[in-house]
Amino acid sequence: MNALLLVAHGSRRSESNEEVAELAGRLAERAEGRFDIVKYAFLELATPSIPDGIEQCLQSGADSVSVLPYFLARGTHVVEDIPEQVAIKQKQYPDTDIHITPYLGTVAELPDVLLKLTE
Amino acid sequence: MNALLLVAHGSRRSESNEEVAELAGRLAERAEGRFDIVKYAFLELATPSIPDGIEQCLQSGADSVSVLPYFLARGTHVVEDIPEQVAIKQKQYPDTDIHITPYLGTVAELPDVLLKLTE
Repeated sequence: MNALLLVAHGSRRSESNEEVAELAGRLAERAEGRFDIVKYAFLELATPSIPDGIEQCLQSGADSVSVLPYFLARGTHVVEDIPEQVAIKQKQYPDTDIHITPYLGTVAELPDVLLKLTE
Repeated sequence: MNALLLVAHGSRRSESNEEVAELAGRLAERAEGRFDIVKYAFLELATPSIPDGIEQCLQSGADSVSVLPYFLARGTHVVEDIPEQVAIKQKQYPDTDIHITPYLGTVAELPDVLLKLTE
């Protein structure tokens, strides 16, 4: 089974974390047929952590986990912190496909998406 | 003339700020016919500031400025800080249409855009 793990920064504001949980729910609806499991995790300030989120996917039966960084810029979080957290589980489960996808800020369609906000 | 001002957080990393400048360039191409002017500004840590970005739009001949928050969560930056910065120019130019659009995190198409990253 394929799992998608949406990884956000995490906030002290519970409302921001709930926005991520809600987005993961909408993602699950749209991902039907592509991902059997959709969960979310936070880099910091909120739970579940990234390793715990990956573990949740594996416990749900995933044999492949795509970790999707919900980040706009190619900063330290994207380049170092998320890979470090994911590596913990990659080492623990060397025979499982656990990989990181490109981050949100790289999506070619961003200009069109942004223009929708001005309609 | 209509102007679109993309407002990002701003980073100490110049590469992150350049990503925003580059995105504004792509936005300008896609916005043809809708916006005559497309510029960018930063809430903090980088220039131009939001008031300076709005001023640039007006000096370029804009009589309407749409300020678009390039933010994912409805946090303090979106709810308080950006409106405060925009209000400086709204007070200075009471007869000009200077308004804030919904922020990126509200776009209904986000799940589909995120799924493209997993292809």
